[in-house]
Amino acid sequence: MENGLKVRVLDIDIGSCVVTLNEEDARELGMHSRDRIKLFIDGKSVVAVLNTTKTVINAGEIGICADLVKAYKVKRNDRVSVMPVEKPHSIEYIKKKMDGLQLNENELGAIVNDVVTNNLSEAEITAFISAVYINGLSMEETAHLARKTAESGEMLELKEKPVFDKHSIGGVPGNKITLLVVPIVAAAGLTIPKTSSRAITSACGTADIMEVLAPVTFNAREIENMVNKTNGVIVWGGGANLAPADDIFIQVEYPLAIDPHHLALSSVMAKKYAVGAEFVVIDLPMGPETKIKDMKEAKKYARDFIELGEKLGIEVECAVTYGDKPIGRAVGPALEAQEALSALEKSEVSSLVEKATELAGILLEAGGVAKKGRGKKKALRILESGAALKKMKEIIEVQGGNPNITSKDIKIGKYSKKVFSHDEGYVTDISNHAVVQIARRAGSPKDQGAGILFHIKKGEKVEKGALLFEIYSNSKYKLDQSVKLTKRLNPVHLEGMLLERIPTYMFIEER
Amino acid sequence: MENGLKVRVLDIDIGSCVVTLNEEDARELGMHSRDRIKLFIDGKSVVAVLNTTKTVINAGEIGICADLVKAYKVKRNDRVSVMPVEKPHSIEYIKKKMDGLQLNENELGAIVNDVVTNNLSEAEITAFISAVYINGLSMEETAHLARKTAESGEMLELKEKPVFDKHSIGGVPGNKITLLVVPIVAAAGLTIPKTSSRAITSACGTADIMEVLAPVTFNAREIENMVNKTNGVIVWGGGANLAPADDIFIQVEYPLAIDPHHLALSSVMAKKYAVGAEFVVIDLPMGPETKIKDMKEAKKYARDFIELGEKLGIEVECAVTYGDKPIGRAVGPALEAQEALSALEKSEVSSLVEKATELAGILLEAGGVAKKGRGKKKALRILESGAALKKMKEIIEVQGGNPNITSKDIKIGKYSKKVFSHDEGYVTDISNHAVVQIARRAGSPKDQGAGILFHIKKGEKVEKGALLFEIYSNSKYKLDQSVKLTKRLNPVHLEGMLLERIPTYMFIEER
Repeated sequence: MENGLKVRVLDIDIGSCVVTLNEEDARELGMHSRDRIKLFIDGKSVVAVLNTTKTVINAGEIGICADLVKAYKVKRNDRVSVMPVEKPHSIEYIKKKMDGLQLNENELGAIVNDVVTNNLSEAEITAFISAVYINGLSMEETAHLARKTAESGEMLELKEKPVFDKHSIGGVPGNKITLLVVPIVAAAGLTIPKTSSRAITSACGTADIMEVLAPVTFNAREIENMVNKTNGVIVWGGGANLAPADDIFIQVEYPLAIDPHHLALSSVMAKKYAVGAEFVVIDLPMGPETKIKDMKEAKKYARDFIELGEKLGIEVECAVTYGDKPIGRAVGPALEAQEALSALEKSEVSSLVEKATELAGILLEAGGVAKKGRGKKKALRILESGAALKKMKEIIEVQGGNPNITSKDIKIGKYSKKVFSHDEGYVTDISNHAVVQIARRAGSPKDQGAGILFHIKKGEKVEKGALLFEIYSNSKYKLDQSVKLTKRLNPVHLEGMLLERIPTYMFIEER
Repeated sequence: MENGLKVRVLDIDIGSCVVTLNEEDARELGMHSRDRIKLFIDGKSVVAVLNTTKTVINAGEIGICADLVKAYKVKRNDRVSVMPVEKPHSIEYIKKKMDGLQLNENELGAIVNDVVTNNLSEAEITAFISAVYINGLSMEETAHLARKTAESGEMLELKEKPVFDKHSIGGVPGNKITLLVVPIVAAAGLTIPKTSSRAITSACGTADIMEVLAPVTFNAREIENMVNKTNGVIVWGGGANLAPADDIFIQVEYPLAIDPHHLALSSVMAKKYAVGAEFVVIDLPMGPETKIKDMKEAKKYARDFIELGEKLGIEVECAVTYGDKPIGRAVGPALEAQEALSALEKSEVSSLVEKATELAGILLEAGGVAKKGRGKKKALRILESGAALKKMKEIIEVQGGNPNITSKDIKIGKYSKKVFSHDEGYVTDISNHAVVQIARRAGSPKDQGAGILFHIKKGEKVEKGALLFEIYSNSKYKLDQSVKLTKRLNPVHLEGMLLERIPTYMFIEER
């Protein structure tokens, strides 16, 4: 043990616990950068990953990151002792998976535990994710991983059982259907504690949309209390410490833009297991620009989710949906919140209402609130009766928003541009990728008012000069950037009656 | 582009270029932690990896690590502009390898280039290494990787050609034979610019041993100048920026303790290609505690090295050697330097001299200095004639050491303990692993005087009470720790005449 290194506080915040020593002191301890080091601070001990430096920290000093300093109440110039410690066993298990072997429940549990306690570095977690990407996991391993991932964080204990849930594996812009499904299902008396994500690479996540109407960051106990009052909530999963290992896996996957199949399965089901769900409907959007390209792939996903659910004691029903174009007319937090609220207010039939009532109907049937085959009709009745709108206002209120808000009150971006068609023809394609990029360039999701509002639908005939869509933003600069990107990406494709392709030059005009 | 963020200098030194923004500013830019960000500093631009924080950096500020600050001469409170940039293409190539596909020369070149320019994070490099570990590389890919790795740094341009070289793939403590091979070969008039490594997990590397006699850190131009004078040097490879991508791969492999076969091949040959070697002898130590367990594995390594050499225009000869016990009697920098220098002084026959002259002989034959089959004899003659000792003194002098040093002048640890046998029997095994751990615990390689000196050899009969070995250290505390570890690891195994196993309790006495 090296005694009495003088503490310096480092201005770093990189997730894991990094401790920095001068190279000389590290050599003296027989240690190398990336080894594990144990710190003894005021009778307590903590293990961190060692970083070494020639320059930043002098011999006799120890650099400790702000997080650790806060957690252990150590001050500049305090003295701490250190000792080399062995690598965690989980590294052996990661290597086992790299070698193509199966991991048992304890081994997967050790990996998950070391992930959430920052005992594995980002590089080591990347090795695990790479190994899973290449070698896969058995369904047995996937179930262990999902359970251990759920158990790595908070678990909801809800009074009213059974618990229902809904998930979309995503990939389609404009997917605000959760804002319809949850109030319909909750209005029918079923419990649905919906946790949603924020956008990472998409235009906006459900949590970003809901945040336009009410706060979405709550801890597990707060969620339980709210659900006990309203049957349902729409909150941000990342705020509740549910299945936190999964959040870390997703962060680590991000730079490589990989989404290993078995980790994707485990990710969804860990969150559902953590909220105590007993029945889950999973929306599988299929299309050329989503995760699922064809029916064969959709069926594989569905089979895997159902099998995984069985192993976890969760009944799963999958619904394959059209994912070849944006859902509804709006993309972007405020525009989508407005569209969803308006659908609850008017309950006019639209593709959005169709999809939402279809999925809500599955849950209503599972909950015994509707007879087999009558779920969708029942969902539509709840919507038309105004009960879903009333429930949504309750949910907004319980989450701390203004329950008297109407779709007209929602503020959208103060700058906008209209995009018109330069030709006539049929709308054969609206590119999801292009729509997402344009909405993000306009400022979505950080700028809640940014986004796109469509005036045409796929399959529709448009005349030359017809209004295709509007782009909104609260920043004139970002709007201009977004218009530039629109010209380059050309998100709406038209074809003539004779099916020859017409290049769709567009012209853009200020509001 | 975000204009005029106020610079704060961060006390971090973690290898890659990390730039920290407040989460709010990052969201404003539509960016996430781990994205690439371009900084515009005083007319120049540089790409770094983005880290985001809620706490350490305020909105409107940008945290820049000390390395970048130094390289771009930016000061606290300077203003810099930033812009999101796309991921490097090399990430696509890493994914291609994860998908089990072949990479071409340009793709491997892009990965290597982004590794040395810090354009790939440690996690991303880990993904590449994991993919190579799991999916392997073809010999074609391995050759491209080796060449690109060499070209990523300095290349030696030596006047006297051909260039000879020697490498041991390691795993055996006490392996100081380079200190005999290089002077023998250089004394025969052949060019041998030997670059060696420092210990990472071993007791000491050849560079650590040589450093007892002379400085070992030189840049490529200095190495060229020295070799032009003496035909040979023994320097630290890490100081010369030869094949720097390989040094980074080795650092990244370290936490996982993996050594993917094709990366190991590429690693060795990249360094040889970088020094311009045309003929290389490779020592493959075989034994239960080395990388090579049996003759089948040794032959595979040899075949692969020879094939890879052909692709790189380097003639390779492999020598499989006994790696089942330490080489010679000494382990630790000063003790090994002493043993090597003493062997050059006395040229008495020993297993050390046997091995060194065997390998040197292969080079002498390849260089046409000895006839086929007569290389070892010639090497022994050069040793016995005193020419090798004279050459070693020249090498020590040209590297800035004291050429008048003798083996007796070398200072070893001032504290020591003797370890005696508690039984009689035959030495059936000396554990490499245990020897390495004990020497490191005594302070090797940072404490040059620390190490182990054996008084018995494998196969020898020892009496009860016979001196087995001595442990040396300059720290009384470390010596005690090392003695404790000796009792636990029991490095010397004895068996009786009748081959029943005798537990070898040892007793230890102060000098």
